[in-house]
Amino acid sequence: MQLQFGKGGGLLPVIIQDAGTSEVLMLGFMNPEAFEETQRTGEVVFFSRTRNRLWKKGEQSGHVLKLREMRVDCDSDALLLRVDAIGPGVCHEGYRSCFFRRIAPDGVATIVEARRFDPVRVYARETMP
Amino acid sequence: MQLQFGKGGGLLPVIIQDAGTSEVLMLGFMNPEAFEETQRTGEVVFFSRTRNRLWKKGEQSGHVLKLREMRVDCDSDALLLRVDAIGPGVCHEGYRSCFFRRIAPDGVATIVEARRFDPVRVYARETMP
Repeated sequence: MQLQFGKGGGLLPVIIQDAGTSEVLMLGFMNPEAFEETQRTGEVVFFSRTRNRLWKKGEQSGHVLKLREMRVDCDSDALLLRVDAIGPGVCHEGYRSCFFRRIAPDGVATIVEARRFDPVRVYARETMP
Repeated sequence: MQLQFGKGGGLLPVIIQDAGTSEVLMLGFMNPEAFEETQRTGEVVFFSRTRNRLWKKGEQSGHVLKLREMRVDCDSDALLLRVDAIGPGVCHEGYRSCFFRRIAPDGVATIVEARRFDPVRVYARETMP
């Protein structure tokens, strides 16, 4: 099983899906080290393109993602991780899913989910990637 | 609503999810033109990194993706499209979803879905991106 990191400049896109509800929660990226750490620990580790370093999801908020099942696509250049998401939500803006805005055909974005927690209290020390 | 194409070298990752079952079917990429075409026509158009051109999903197979709902993430750098997937499957290898292989913690990949169609008959003329 050889993952194709090269097509994305060393990073694979990784879809995070709730193992219980099948809701898509977020999309992150992994380099080979993030992939290895995720496999080794059973908790999701990304590579942050903003911070340019490994980023364990929940390292600050406690909202870790426990890996239930990992899937790979036909071209071995994308991953789908089914997880148990610990805590009220994965998004640093306080929502269950990062995909809390709908885009209409005219391009207007509207928030269509309810906020689950106060991000200022959870992410007090620094901005998330 | 300003999408952030810059972080990914001009391309956004796009998650395709079955609007009925919530199964994740595939991941593709869009440049601004692919995004506009998708919005304009209501059928999903990607940018193929392999062919380096716009790629209407289903242009060869007939397995088009009809857009039901578009979501954007908190950082405006990833899209989630809930679709009606026409035909028996979206994957050029003959499966319903491109994520038909599970990766075990030891790295071994195993096919865990049933093949839905014969890809040789559907994709007779050329290899898909």
